[in-house]
Amino acid sequence: MTIATNQYAALTEETAIALAKSVYPFPEGAELSSREIGDGNLNYVFRITDSASGKGVIIKQALPYAKVVGESWPLTLKRAETEAAALLKHGEFAPGLVPEVYATDTDLAVTVMEDLSHLKIAREGLIAGESYPKLSSDIGEYLARTLFHTSDFALHPFEKKRLAAEFSNPELCKITEDLIFTDPFFDRETNDFEPQLRLAVEAIWNNAPLQLEAAKLKYSFLTEAEALLHGDLHTGSIFASAEETKVIDPEFAFYGPIGFDVGLFLANLIAQGITRTGEGRKVITDHIAKTWETFEGTFSALWEAEGVEAFKNTPGYREAILEKVFSDALGFAGCELIRRTIGLAHVKDLDGIEEEARRIELKKQALELGETLILNRRTIKDIGAVVRLAEGEAR
Amino acid sequence: MTIATNQYAALTEETAIALAKSVYPFPEGAELSSREIGDGNLNYVFRITDSASGKGVIIKQALPYAKVVGESWPLTLKRAETEAAALLKHGEFAPGLVPEVYATDTDLAVTVMEDLSHLKIAREGLIAGESYPKLSSDIGEYLARTLFHTSDFALHPFEKKRLAAEFSNPELCKITEDLIFTDPFFDRETNDFEPQLRLAVEAIWNNAPLQLEAAKLKYSFLTEAEALLHGDLHTGSIFASAEETKVIDPEFAFYGPIGFDVGLFLANLIAQGITRTGEGRKVITDHIAKTWETFEGTFSALWEAEGVEAFKNTPGYREAILEKVFSDALGFAGCELIRRTIGLAHVKDLDGIEEEARRIELKKQALELGETLILNRRTIKDIGAVVRLAEGEAR
Repeated sequence: MTIATNQYAALTEETAIALAKSVYPFPEGAELSSREIGDGNLNYVFRITDSASGKGVIIKQALPYAKVVGESWPLTLKRAETEAAALLKHGEFAPGLVPEVYATDTDLAVTVMEDLSHLKIAREGLIAGESYPKLSSDIGEYLARTLFHTSDFALHPFEKKRLAAEFSNPELCKITEDLIFTDPFFDRETNDFEPQLRLAVEAIWNNAPLQLEAAKLKYSFLTEAEALLHGDLHTGSIFASAEETKVIDPEFAFYGPIGFDVGLFLANLIAQGITRTGEGRKVITDHIAKTWETFEGTFSALWEAEGVEAFKNTPGYREAILEKVFSDALGFAGCELIRRTIGLAHVKDLDGIEEEARRIELKKQALELGETLILNRRTIKDIGAVVRLAEGEAR
Repeated sequence: MTIATNQYAALTEETAIALAKSVYPFPEGAELSSREIGDGNLNYVFRITDSASGKGVIIKQALPYAKVVGESWPLTLKRAETEAAALLKHGEFAPGLVPEVYATDTDLAVTVMEDLSHLKIAREGLIAGESYPKLSSDIGEYLARTLFHTSDFALHPFEKKRLAAEFSNPELCKITEDLIFTDPFFDRETNDFEPQLRLAVEAIWNNAPLQLEAAKLKYSFLTEAEALLHGDLHTGSIFASAEETKVIDPEFAFYGPIGFDVGLFLANLIAQGITRTGEGRKVITDHIAKTWETFEGTFSALWEAEGVEAFKNTPGYREAILEKVFSDALGFAGCELIRRTIGLAHVKDLDGIEEEARRIELKKQALELGETLILNRRTIKDIGAVVRLAEGEAR
């Protein structure tokens, strides 16, 4: 449903309750509590709970600026609309793997959705050593279903092009273009790294072959409208438990290269894997293998069962597309590993390591892995080879 | 200027005069004559002339259907808007190489533009043996200027994505997707060829490696939003004389792979070259070489002087992009050669050859050249190798 309002105003804990009541069937006389639980950098996130049942809803409201780099960046409110539309579209194809959307409001930049407070952000859980046995099969399934069904392999070209225009998302794409594909490869002030990494970072800035491949990957991100991506699929965009997986926060959604979503998720697994040893690391490398295997298997099954492309039975075509997605994914994963180590936005997996020498050493490993994935993305044959890299056999 | 109307109605020779007067500064009391000079398949084309000066304007009006395959196909009137917008946008970057636009009307699906009646359609002139010494340098320049300036190498990403959404052109793209990239590779009823070609055509339908490469080229056309293409740049879309070259009819304009415009033009030169021998053929193969060389040189100069991409000075990046455009162009040229020989819409260069045995033989050459270009597009090193193919040395 769409809420009828007219003008943007930041919600308060009180107005959030009123909004929740107007769109969600709380029992009559329910006593609702409201708490802002977001980090307040980009969005407000209100949790509205019926004290009697403990049930509730989440109201997410976009703020008209982003609090990063100290200063405020103005940031389009349209991202709330994009996020809600992407949740709904992806939910059509991967029901159960994204939160349910109860209502949206474009003027308020608000989405009212399923409360997932019983789950934990996968990144936090993984850092704490929790085990999410379903994580990789669920995400592999999510990737295959959302990406196949929004691609030219499944849609009439009119519908595909309509969606591509609807999900044009220049402002948020530019953040990715800058922070993942540009700044880390040059001496830019958005970069952020420990002095002990300076030599390694300067080696990246002076690595012409690496820059050439980064340039090509950026061009692919800029030009290849293959499917409706999540656009920011790191482990911080996933709620998980032992039984459930829910992908949230698709405000970066746009039509881009399929390998980008796959690669970002793999990179964030790799970054977590680096911090572990022995059996703990194997849990993560198993997730890496399982993600790709599930993606590939599900995508192939959908291609066979539901593909509409005239060439779908041409020998080698499906394999060629999956090969492209695979090498793209490795390249994008490499860029993500590098930017999460030396760019503006880091990951807690690595930054949270208190022992300095170890932290620096692991960050160097992340940079090396990133470079390897970017430079060798077309010669790395299969996910087994990626697993061996992540296991450290080749390091 | 924009004409203020409200509802579509087909123009007549009389109403066309009134429209012309309202938007173009004819001398007071001028006696205007009006004649419909289009082929009436897709559009009306009225030429409005001041009898005293001989000067005039062209009014092009889209018809709400296309008379092809016997029956009428309904066809979006929006293509008139696309065409006018593309003429204006391309005219910004390649002034003098496209007709001047005096006025447009979205409701009437009308564009009022420069009268180019003193020029001849390049295809007709080339068939008649006329010489257009500036044709290839002008088209090479047109391609480089329009494609560079509408790409991510020249535009801010916000403006590029705004244009890509504005020029979303699903209906006309689908015609290309079907008639160039799909139907000729399968036994479809839109195909049209002499019985003597059946064996050669069936060989195409059964050539799995060729179909695989055609599928990849189609995917590139479907997904790669590199620049604002003309979208239908054959020699019938070009007015020429010994001194002038004007590119018309960009109703297929959309954001697609740069190599598509380049390849279509090259294919139509190749098809004309096939019909010639000796010095006559050399005129055409010289045009083939000059088109690419001018495109490459101008694109490179613009990259250096006006490129905005952060990686523009990364060693090898410009070369890698031009290599991609080159191999894409050869693949698209191959598809165009095949579809212009056995698909729905042929070229008069080949169809107009009266002697049957020779016509069939040349069409077989066109098919072979098409296959070679598609299959070998990544190993054909430079335009010299294409020239040798077109000269028949390798045939």
